[in-house]
Amino acid sequence: MKTDVVILAAGQGSRMKSAMPKVMHRLAGKPMLQHVIDSAQRLAPEAMHVVIGHEGEQVEQAMSGQPLNFVWQREQLGTGHAVAQAMPNIGQDSVVLVLYGDVPMTRPETLQQLIKIAAQGDLGLLTVTLDDPTGYGRIIRNAVGDVVAIVEHKDATEQERLIREVNTGILALPSAALHEWLPRLSADNAQGEYYLTDVIAMAAEEGMRVRAIQPEAEQEVQGVNNRQQLAQLERWYQRQQAEQLMTDGVTLADPERIDIRGELRTGRDVLIDINTVFEGEVVLGEGVEIGANCIIRNARIGAGTRVEANSIIDGAVVAENAQIGPFARLRPGTELAVGSKVGNFVETKKARIGEGSKVNHLTYIGDAEIGRNVNVGAGTITCNYDGVNKSQTKIGDGAFIGSNSSLVAPVEIGAGATVGAGSTVTKTVADNQLAVARGKQINLDNWARPKKKGS
Amino acid sequence: MKTDVVILAAGQGSRMKSAMPKVMHRLAGKPMLQHVIDSAQRLAPEAMHVVIGHEGEQVEQAMSGQPLNFVWQREQLGTGHAVAQAMPNIGQDSVVLVLYGDVPMTRPETLQQLIKIAAQGDLGLLTVTLDDPTGYGRIIRNAVGDVVAIVEHKDATEQERLIREVNTGILALPSAALHEWLPRLSADNAQGEYYLTDVIAMAAEEGMRVRAIQPEAEQEVQGVNNRQQLAQLERWYQRQQAEQLMTDGVTLADPERIDIRGELRTGRDVLIDINTVFEGEVVLGEGVEIGANCIIRNARIGAGTRVEANSIIDGAVVAENAQIGPFARLRPGTELAVGSKVGNFVETKKARIGEGSKVNHLTYIGDAEIGRNVNVGAGTITCNYDGVNKSQTKIGDGAFIGSNSSLVAPVEIGAGATVGAGSTVTKTVADNQLAVARGKQINLDNWARPKKKGS
Amino acid sequence: MKTDVVILAAGQGSRMKSAMPKVMHRLAGKPMLQHVIDSAQRLAPEAMHVVIGHEGEQVEQAMSGQPLNFVWQREQLGTGHAVAQAMPNIGQDSVVLVLYGDVPMTRPETLQQLIKIAAQGDLGLLTVTLDDPTGYGRIIRNAVGDVVAIVEHKDATEQERLIREVNTGILALPSAALHEWLPRLSADNAQGEYYLTDVIAMAAEEGMRVRAIQPEAEQEVQGVNNRQQLAQLERWYQRQQAEQLMTDGVTLADPERIDIRGELRTGRDVLIDINTVFEGEVVLGEGVEIGANCIIRNARIGAGTRVEANSIIDGAVVAENAQIGPFARLRPGTELAVGSKVGNFVETKKARIGEGSKVNHLTYIGDAEIGRNVNVGAGTITCNYDGVNKSQTKIGDGAFIGSNSSLVAPVEIGAGATVGAGSTVTKTVADNQLAVARGKQINLDNWARPKKKGS
Repeated sequence: MKTDVVILAAGQGSRMKSAMPKVMHRLAGKPMLQHVIDSAQRLAPEAMHVVIGHEGEQVEQAMSGQPLNFVWQREQLGTGHAVAQAMPNIGQDSVVLVLYGDVPMTRPETLQQLIKIAAQGDLGLLTVTLDDPTGYGRIIRNAVGDVVAIVEHKDATEQERLIREVNTGILALPSAALHEWLPRLSADNAQGEYYLTDVIAMAAEEGMRVRAIQPEAEQEVQGVNNRQQLAQLERWYQRQQAEQLMTDGVTLADPERIDIRGELRTGRDVLIDINTVFEGEVVLGEGVEIGANCIIRNARIGAGTRVEANSIIDGAVVAENAQIGPFARLRPGTELAVGSKVGNFVETKKARIGEGSKVNHLTYIGDAEIGRNVNVGAGTITCNYDGVNKSQTKIGDGAFIGSNSSLVAPVEIGAGATVGAGSTVTKTVADNQLAVARGKQINLDNWARPKKKGS
Repeated sequence: MKTDVVILAAGQGSRMKSAMPKVMHRLAGKPMLQHVIDSAQRLAPEAMHVVIGHEGEQVEQAMSGQPLNFVWQREQLGTGHAVAQAMPNIGQDSVVLVLYGDVPMTRPETLQQLIKIAAQGDLGLLTVTLDDPTGYGRIIRNAVGDVVAIVEHKDATEQERLIREVNTGILALPSAALHEWLPRLSADNAQGEYYLTDVIAMAAEEGMRVRAIQPEAEQEVQGVNNRQQLAQLERWYQRQQAEQLMTDGVTLADPERIDIRGELRTGRDVLIDINTVFEGEVVLGEGVEIGANCIIRNARIGAGTRVEANSIIDGAVVAENAQIGPFARLRPGTELAVGSKVGNFVETKKARIGEGSKVNHLTYIGDAEIGRNVNVGAGTITCNYDGVNKSQTKIGDGAFIGSNSSLVAPVEIGAGATVGAGSTVTKTVADNQLAVARGKQINLDNWARPKKKGS
Repeated sequence: MKTDVVILAAGQGSRMKSAMPKVMHRLAGKPMLQHVIDSAQRLAPEAMHVVIGHEGEQVEQAMSGQPLNFVWQREQLGTGHAVAQAMPNIGQDSVVLVLYGDVPMTRPETLQQLIKIAAQGDLGLLTVTLDDPTGYGRIIRNAVGDVVAIVEHKDATEQERLIREVNTGILALPSAALHEWLPRLSADNAQGEYYLTDVIAMAAEEGMRVRAIQPEAEQEVQGVNNRQQLAQLERWYQRQQAEQLMTDGVTLADPERIDIRGELRTGRDVLIDINTVFEGEVVLGEGVEIGANCIIRNARIGAGTRVEANSIIDGAVVAENAQIGPFARLRPGTELAVGSKVGNFVETKKARIGEGSKVNHLTYIGDAEIGRNVNVGAGTITCNYDGVNKSQTKIGDGAFIGSNSSLVAPVEIGAGATVGAGSTVTKTVADNQLAVARGKQINLDNWARPKKKGS
């Protein structure tokens, strides 16, 4: 059976005190709404309908390029009203799954169960058992365990208030029923809103079974209404990821001090020190060690490579047994070959550094191709920018670049060539040549040091 | 009615194992005593009397320049004796509020309530209800809820020991009563000390009402006797501040990993990543993003500016939409204009960097004024110091400073001028001029590389 | 009486999902097995017998050079079988203490108690009381408190399952008894293994008293079977060390954010900021302050020295009242004298920096000896490597090295000498000389800036 997912994303979230719509706030590096979309996507739905309202243009723009139907809810008249906006795009023969853009952590496996129930013609409802259910709608079940009603807290008897199983609002049901029931919702209540929850009573009335399931963790159904809740969910999610990494065989110096904002794939016996951050897609090969305070984004790091503390890697591909850092910064387009080394206070960008080559200290390598077994001395700068254009530097295998050199691109340094320390190289250096470009040293005796001004 | 605040700060705190007097130990970047003074100051007191003793000179010197009367307690004869030292400076018609230099977190709002009680002629006592009151003086109340006695733990009956409300020692009362009662205190007890607490019994005896109030949080009355307690209170205070930031609409990646030692003011939709530290007065404009591991001290950062990870900012003013870091260090006197950029391994000091200008890599800019749309190449150094004097570097709008240049101050580079890479500039460069100051490149064929020594 | 320690280290630990034997996984920077060895060493044993099996060569190699007898257990036939492999090397008149390579945190003081019991001819057994003893062997004691049996969980009656005191497997007993009993162990059980635990029943049978003691903390007997347990124990251990530091009079900004992997000795009034890591042997003198995110390894730091944030120190000796960082990196062989200063983006290696000398910015000092009161300008590089050999740089007292200089070693700069900014110095500079080695500045008017390529 086909599945239509309806995601409610129209709310303002005034307690966020934000210029952004609530669902755009980021958790683990991506908007809450994106988490919901990504989970829904894994259900292979026929279509995803995102109901937008408050600052909806921001949502539409940020999520553009994805297979989403945006539906406007111009007035905020309740969850039933919101879902109703999406119904014109939904046929009679599918399952409708209703999700919320500010409930970002529901697992696809949990949602799959709801869809399965609805595909059997029943209403699947996600409920959760809370230690303190105060304020939530209580779940009333019949003798066989089916849900027969949801009683709002304020309407509940003292006996009913003892029930700790509550409604989460997440549900799935046959679209035909929803098409029939939504127009019958009434706004005759204190808030004057159309509540989606009322379809539960309609289902019971019309003899449709309402079967409730529960998530593995309470956080799967936790909504975010303020920054505290956002932070709580962030921490829970990060901790879940840390647990998974450890189960997979990664040693974490402190599971409370690792942040993964994207996907981190790891080989065996990876060690990750304290206070690290991973963003985007990161792959770490077997035996990789990541030092304290490193930030690694969209990178592949080969087996046996060691990234020392306080390094930042972004958009780089690193081969096996390389050494990076501490205090290294690899920027996009960096490729390090096997056994190469990038040391402290070194920045690389669009740079290929060959096997066994070393760039150890205080250096900028940009728009460069460096061969094998090259030694780049401390303080070397590839002058890749003339104010308008970027140009390339090429350095051949086995070259030796003396310290504090400036290589003015475009320029080539041949294989086996040597550049004398402190040189500014503007012309090609052929293979095995020595290039020196510096002033002659003059020593003056008894030079009078400057004097303190005003003295 | 006038208020005289007496702050007891004479104790040694031997469990701190310190060469400093206890009250000088810092919490959130300032001495505990300073927290007490700052809270008291907000009550607009007539005078603040600080009773010092152990290493009192250190206290006096560290707190100099503030409106404080220092009073010496040469012998440590108890809290009653300590307060008595301050009484000669206090008149008959004020309220006396007694505070403790090692109880740093009491809120002014809590203290205000005590003063209000005392201004009505009663004794205001701060009490707290503990899960485990063992060792503390229990509060005995009468039928209308007034305190009638404090029973020390060792003197308490089994019934009285069940009482969990205990004395904190913080109290306020009319000065006239204190003038009368303090001389009547007795040191006829196990420790041979004069206890301020005994005035409660005197009040009850003489028919003065003793009205107790309680703080919002237990930590408001927590004293610090060792480094563990100092750390606990530090963590509680930091967590309180994090909560407040989130309530104000700031996203914190981890509320357990932000430290604020001073005052942090924030615009809307500020994002603060893990493991950051803020010191002194910091203002962050709307939409500012602070990356992981940044340390920001006494700085104003304009709306939309992004400070990337591992940057340190101290005493800088940054305009809107600037980009800083990663690995940048802005030192005092740095001013960054709109849209400017300071990149990795760059240090600035007493430097104005104009709108749209970029200083992206491995550079030192000190004592400099840089115009608009200037590009400062990687590895540039402003040579601002000749060993005795500091001098200025001026760079005009639109200038281009080639990489690895040395600008020997005092020196001016005109608007639109260009400095060739690797140049050492010692003389003025006029507008639109090109300056080059480097050796001629010489290439030697078949140069024999150095050989391994001893081989 | 002599003590023979037998350490079982043959297991694979498949839940670690590792290519390493389990006991080689590191806790606080050293293999779990090493923790056990170090604790055992403090008991001054006659010999330590390490029973290896799975990937035993790795263990043998990693632990080489220590006074250990490695004994192979080729087949994994149970703990009793494992201990039996070591017995041929143990005489009849000693105490045998059995430890486990994956139970790293038992304190020597705890073990000493077991040895004392065994030295009296009894069997000393380490037990622990758990909140949830499910799965563990329960301790059955007689009227005088001696252990008479250990009942495995699956064999226990309902009544016995209420017992929360369980066996840890750690025990000590006279070697003669063990020599007699081990050959009598039977593998006639579900796993077909020889269990060491069965000697408890034999002891009871033969009238040897079994006296149980308990550790101070449950974590002393916690075994590590997966990375989660490794992380839990790591965090517990780190927290213990933080507590000890605070007790000793160190202020920790956050006791949850300090990692000590080795030994940290501290003077009075040391302050340690958030997120620091200490490795190897580190000594911090009185009043030393360590900034946030610093990593310090095998270093001595003198009283009053301040290490600012984001610095990394490895193998350095720093005298009193020095200033380091932020963003400094001191590598092995660095020696800083009293009042010297190493600033941001500076790397030092095999470098002695004299009293009052300053190396403040963007500099590499390697293989150098720098006198007193020297000022090394920003961007200075000691060119210590010619591709094959390392050479020395010597700088005399009071010298001034201009910014962006390259000092091509071997080279000497005399006392009081000055090197002009931007110079490449290849020849000796005598005392008080000025050396300049740079190109002449040429200014060209109306230089045409490069044009955008393709435009």
